[in-house]
Amino acid sequence: MRLMGLDPGLRITGWGIIDIDGNRMTHVADGCVKTDAKLSLAERLNQLYEGIELVIKRFGPIEAAVEETFVNKNPNSTLKLGQARGVVMLMPARAGLSVSEYTPNQVKKTVVGTGHAAKEQVQMMVKTLLPTAKIESADAADALAVAICHAQHRNTPDKWGSLR
Amino acid sequence: MRLMGLDPGLRITGWGIIDIDGNRMTHVADGCVKTDAKLSLAERLNQLYEGIELVIKRFGPIEAAVEETFVNKNPNSTLKLGQARGVVMLMPARAGLSVSEYTPNQVKKTVVGTGHAAKEQVQMMVKTLLPTAKIESADAADALAVAICHAQHRNTPDKWGSLR
Repeated sequence: MRLMGLDPGLRITGWGIIDIDGNRMTHVADGCVKTDAKLSLAERLNQLYEGIELVIKRFGPIEAAVEETFVNKNPNSTLKLGQARGVVMLMPARAGLSVSEYTPNQVKKTVVGTGHAAKEQVQMMVKTLLPTAKIESADAADALAVAICHAQHRNTPDKWGSLR
Repeated sequence: MRLMGLDPGLRITGWGIIDIDGNRMTHVADGCVKTDAKLSLAERLNQLYEGIELVIKRFGPIEAAVEETFVNKNPNSTLKLGQARGVVMLMPARAGLSVSEYTPNQVKKTVVGTGHAAKEQVQMMVKTLLPTAKIESADAADALAVAICHAQHRNTPDKWGSLR
């Protein structure tokens, strides 16, 4: 069973692919889709869409998980992130994948064991859980963490009732 | 020359199509794409995408204009609106249309003559400028206003320097 994790952003969207077989997890690939800030917003959103489409076509994941964007205090940043996130959620849905959402706290709690772990702790645990991964960037590591979170919780949606 | 205006929203996205020929503007069609709140976010975004795709296929506009979303004080609403707006901007770009953006103030200033016009004044002016339109809803009227704004300014991008 192949899963895809996505960490959305307008400038950089991280992606990570893992295989799961029972309790075993294997790293398949990871990377980033970057957009060209000189292009119009619509063109950049299309770059995101086409980048994610390429990854899905190449690796054939059957389920996707997307990090629920952190809502920061700058409304314009939130709007920008929202626009990217809309496209990042849309593409896998159009490709026929189920698309789950996890908050940053859910991801941290699953991967590190505490909802308030530092970013570096998450990345360290991703490397421990996926020892064959040569992780490209922080965004790719975050995406792999989302995929790991989904691997742990895809069959137990109710569990989140107590974690949210 | 056929233009499309879009007023994005996750629940309801208004759309309006007009033809322009020199200074003459004619109403072609308007309506709304609605999404089913019972579906997942990814599925709702796909409903938006497919709804806009249908309108573009049916009416064949060659340029699109999208209202720049009002950034309100609730970050979650801004995020939701952003996600819808990302998809609303993406679809016309993928269909090969140019996609322009106008702020609500630019739209009001163009259609009514003042950037602080009430919503009702904008709708009244849309009916005056497009007398053959039987406008379906407030969202469709807003979308037609965006199309009218684009018709006036599509060849004078620099003008906005003084209006922004």
